[in-house]
Amino acid sequence: MTVTHPARGMRDFLPDDVRRRAYVVSVIAGVYERYGFEPLETPAVENIETLLGKYGDEGDRLIFKILKRGEGAERGEADLALRYDLTVPLARVVAEYRGMLPRFFKRYQIQPVWRADRPQRGRYREFYQCDVDAIGSRSPVVEAELCAAAAEALTRLGFATFTVRLNHRQLLAGLLEASGVPGDLQGAALVALDKLDKIGRDAVSGELDDRGVPPAAAASLLDLFDRLGPAAGTSAVAVGTDEALRTLSDRVAGLPEARAGLENLAEIVALCAGTPAAGRIRIDPSLARGLAYYTGAIMEIAVTDLAGSLGGGGRYDRLVGMFLGDDVPAAGFSLGLERILVVMTERGMFPPHLTGAAADVMVTLWNTSGRAAALALAGELRAAGLRVDVYPDADRLGKQFKYAAARGVPLVAVLGDDEVARGEVAIKDLRSGEQHAVPRATLAAALRDRLAVPPAAGASGAAPHA
Amino acid sequence: MTVTHPARGMRDFLPDDVRRRAYVVSVIAGVYERYGFEPLETPAVENIETLLGKYGDEGDRLIFKILKRGEGAERGEADLALRYDLTVPLARVVAEYRGMLPRFFKRYQIQPVWRADRPQRGRYREFYQCDVDAIGSRSPVVEAELCAAAAEALTRLGFATFTVRLNHRQLLAGLLEASGVPGDLQGAALVALDKLDKIGRDAVSGELDDRGVPPAAAASLLDLFDRLGPAAGTSAVAVGTDEALRTLSDRVAGLPEARAGLENLAEIVALCAGTPAAGRIRIDPSLARGLAYYTGAIMEIAVTDLAGSLGGGGRYDRLVGMFLGDDVPAAGFSLGLERILVVMTERGMFPPHLTGAAADVMVTLWNTSGRAAALALAGELRAAGLRVDVYPDADRLGKQFKYAAARGVPLVAVLGDDEVARGEVAIKDLRSGEQHAVPRATLAAALRDRLAVPPAAGASGAAPHA
Repeated sequence: MTVTHPARGMRDFLPDDVRRRAYVVSVIAGVYERYGFEPLETPAVENIETLLGKYGDEGDRLIFKILKRGEGAERGEADLALRYDLTVPLARVVAEYRGMLPRFFKRYQIQPVWRADRPQRGRYREFYQCDVDAIGSRSPVVEAELCAAAAEALTRLGFATFTVRLNHRQLLAGLLEASGVPGDLQGAALVALDKLDKIGRDAVSGELDDRGVPPAAAASLLDLFDRLGPAAGTSAVAVGTDEALRTLSDRVAGLPEARAGLENLAEIVALCAGTPAAGRIRIDPSLARGLAYYTGAIMEIAVTDLAGSLGGGGRYDRLVGMFLGDDVPAAGFSLGLERILVVMTERGMFPPHLTGAAADVMVTLWNTSGRAAALALAGELRAAGLRVDVYPDADRLGKQFKYAAARGVPLVAVLGDDEVARGEVAIKDLRSGEQHAVPRATLAAALRDRLAVPPAAGASGAAPHA
Repeated sequence: MTVTHPARGMRDFLPDDVRRRAYVVSVIAGVYERYGFEPLETPAVENIETLLGKYGDEGDRLIFKILKRGEGAERGEADLALRYDLTVPLARVVAEYRGMLPRFFKRYQIQPVWRADRPQRGRYREFYQCDVDAIGSRSPVVEAELCAAAAEALTRLGFATFTVRLNHRQLLAGLLEASGVPGDLQGAALVALDKLDKIGRDAVSGELDDRGVPPAAAASLLDLFDRLGPAAGTSAVAVGTDEALRTLSDRVAGLPEARAGLENLAEIVALCAGTPAAGRIRIDPSLARGLAYYTGAIMEIAVTDLAGSLGGGGRYDRLVGMFLGDDVPAAGFSLGLERILVVMTERGMFPPHLTGAAADVMVTLWNTSGRAAALALAGELRAAGLRVDVYPDADRLGKQFKYAAARGVPLVAVLGDDEVARGEVAIKDLRSGEQHAVPRATLAAALRDRLAVPPAAGASGAAPHA
């Protein structure tokens, strides 16, 4: 028989999975909406030239390419590709619709992206990103709002202990320059430095050496980080540690751009004081972020006892210019839905109502001639806002009860000949085993009482998926 | 500069587009949930052998194929492909997780599919389907529930005049056989017959001739349809037209399978009597449906004054068997989101609140030193459930008001030095131009009064997108 598993690195989401994912997405989208961000969606498929050259060589290799239809197919030519992130499509959209968008365009976008990475635990080839970006302003208000929104989203999902690590590309460049790392090795040094909290000082030292950074420069750089934090593994500088900030400031004293970067960070931290990000921000000069397009502040959210991050972002004032010609200031933050889900599942952070019940009530089928009556009864209950399943066949009642229980349906409505004669319907509560008859006219209310579903909430129809 | 438009036949959805789409999706998903269907999601990308050979030659040609990574790429080999519909992935899922799914698996799935069709007005290469399927039962209760759910979804969206056309593949095969259409030409005859309501009797007659159907058989077939309905263009047989049903029954008298098909249709119509599909169903023997995999009842929703359909479906008892080996009975219905959106847009069927307002309130920025205070005020209002934007720069107030008005934001909060000194905040209503100051402690309540947003609804956070 044909293979039935999903493609490598991809996943099917069964109903409980979808409900968990939709819950997290709705919390995040709800927060983004309250921050004045508007929803945007772009196609899964982009023209291949839109994507190539935006993510570096490694990125280009990981882009899924779509074969041309017709003639080009035999030659193996590709003209389209699958979306690799949500930032490059946003930059394209800003260039394409510049006349129609507001001067400050604040959008959120929650859609899947695809990367032909080697699949491994927690890393997939199809995964969702939850991005929020503000286009058109250089104000540090933008970065503060991004940090506040991300922090509020995580807090509302139940995360209690997390830190927003904050750094600045210009500060970073200044620290490398001041330590004597030659300009052409700064990119490689950044990649090594980014691992300081993961692999430790000695391993980073070895990697800097491997990459050709002169020993004196590497030592000067690592020495700086030693002085900034108590240990390399937890190198984050607590905001307000005046000594650490003074150390940084002294080091880049002769470099105006780096000093401006440091001042920008101080402003962002100050602006966050009255927001949900208050007390979460840590200036961390070892944070580098992989992507090449960042130009200013960069940030990443770290959770206690968890390697890797739940999301990150930064300012990228020149990416839109790659599409538009003119630069347009921009900054954004991306929460990683898959990692958030992994942590929430491991730590049991989902509300209990999310799983289990496929319906509130199941209407049983007494006999074949009672089918129309069963469907009509289901229709009445649905009109009253209840989620109602109908057993499709006239099987033994015991079998029908067992089926409902297995699906997690708490209540069963039985419409037998006796009940019909008396104008009643029997309710069986599968949780207690209790059964009693109620007049048909009051059935929906009786069921709702047992479920404790208020009429309005039920009638509005929960849409766990969209 | 780089090209900035989306790929051919694909669309970007700006905020108002996303809100309209999310509204329709949430109404449909809400109805499906009330019918006891559970959400399922499958990957956009499938192994290519999962899709090939399931949709006919024409379908295979329209599948977007993904180039192999590494070696196969140079040879133009494809190992993956983009989802072409939601039914084949469902059949794969049923086979893959058969031990984990309930005996009757009722799922809905609302996701995009991709087809390399020639783009034209209202036809795209990326489009959403809203599918609902019930696996595991041969009961006509299943078809009745599918018709009822689709009819209720359209009714809740505001469609008043639509018809569920109903036919049966076995009845259709019997009618062709009884008219003398040879077995090997029945597929071709079905394709021609399916166009009866679109191109009329004469054109169908010509097409049957072109396809090699003997003139006597074609005449007998078309003669039957003349007798069934008042005109070929509106050939639907009104249910209860005893004469029409007797005509059909007589024609297939000697064909037990076709008679069983007709009886099945009568049962489905009877079961719909107490549901939202009541009075909508019309048995229409000219309905054929393009897909090869249908085995029983087929249906399609037609809207008055609209060519084409808003959705369709049917019973397909052998598709799961292509993956599983053993046949599993199944039936489903798919609503076409894009057509629904086109009609709703043309006819102005969206609720007015869906478009325009990016936020409820915008907090202005008085001067650079007031930025932290503005962010803190925004935070208070967000915590009270309001959607709040903050103007990022200390521009002239008039410019800030103009910007808010252009984004459709109805209210602006002004926190100037005077207001701060008095413990007040000024509210400007951009709809009336009116401005007045309120104590800061009552600001959220005052804004909500003006917006007429109840606290609970605001605080729960509308998530228009998921």
